[in-house]
Amino acid sequence: MLEVEIKARVASLREVEERLRQRGARYLGEEEQMDAYFAHPCRDFAATDEALRLRRAGGRVTLTYKGRKLDAVTKTREEVSLAVESYQAAREILTKLGFEEVALVKKLRRSYRLGEYLVELDSVAELGSFVEVEKKAEEYSPEELVAFLSSLGIGREAVERRSYLELLLGEGDG
Amino acid sequence: MLEVEIKARVASLREVEERLRQRGARYLGEEEQMDAYFAHPCRDFAATDEALRLRRAGGRVTLTYKGRKLDAVTKTREEVSLAVESYQAAREILTKLGFEEVALVKKLRRSYRLGEYLVELDSVAELGSFVEVEKKAEEYSPEELVAFLSSLGIGREAVERRSYLELLLGEGDG
Repeated sequence: MLEVEIKARVASLREVEERLRQRGARYLGEEEQMDAYFAHPCRDFAATDEALRLRRAGGRVTLTYKGRKLDAVTKTREEVSLAVESYQAAREILTKLGFEEVALVKKLRRSYRLGEYLVELDSVAELGSFVEVEKKAEEYSPEELVAFLSSLGIGREAVERRSYLELLLGEGDG
Repeated sequence: MLEVEIKARVASLREVEERLRQRGARYLGEEEQMDAYFAHPCRDFAATDEALRLRRAGGRVTLTYKGRKLDAVTKTREEVSLAVESYQAAREILTKLGFEEVALVKKLRRSYRLGEYLVELDSVAELGSFVEVEKKAEEYSPEELVAFLSSLGIGREAVERRSYLELLLGEGDG
């Protein structure tokens, strides 16, 4: 099962949020997320398009491996997530193994559910406002996600394929 | 805080267990432990004397990093442990990061508490019977642990500094 995902930069989250509410989207909540990203001791994640993230949010800590992106438009990747008990211990084990923290992404995320879509409205420190749309799928269709974004008033030109990490580090394929 | 630790090979665990009971040790329980050990993607753990272990025991899963041994007699190391939610997800993340499972150590462990000492009686598949003694300490004294082993009827010549992993793989410093 893949997590099909697309992201777009927007000038204002409020307009998107109003459209979501008009269409009957269900508000799931707001969460502050602190994501530490790590460099691999001997693999260039920027080149392999992978990532390792340790997230603190709502009292939970999650370690997530992200594989390379699977198409040229969306940011669909294979992901493996693991709930862990302690941020400090996880960080220390990673550091002892040679993983180095390279960036910290802080954001406020407001989430909505609209049918099979999870819509996340992100205010990201140092980067600005973004809308992420996700759905679980066996197969993925980039165009379906582009069409859904469009129905929220977000054009294809706003699509941002780079991760927050890449944007912060000034990397990626644009 | 260090975990000061010594291990010895014994012919029979029953005699040690009887001595422990005579001295009023408290029985803590019995547990089957399955430990998967991983090789680092670009560091030779056999050379650096480190280890990365994923343990399943009593419904819990724990990831543990072990640093190199700190003296020539005991097996005292720095250890960092992390409770994780899923064995499968932890194993998958490690594998995606290039860590390779190199051995599986299965043992039945009966644990006793005697004062500040934790005494573990291990029946290890393919390896035999061992007694491990641990205490938490700011500083460590190998001779104190050797003396404690001796009080259980176990001589210095029985001390085994190699880990179960090293014994299984036929490695280590004897």
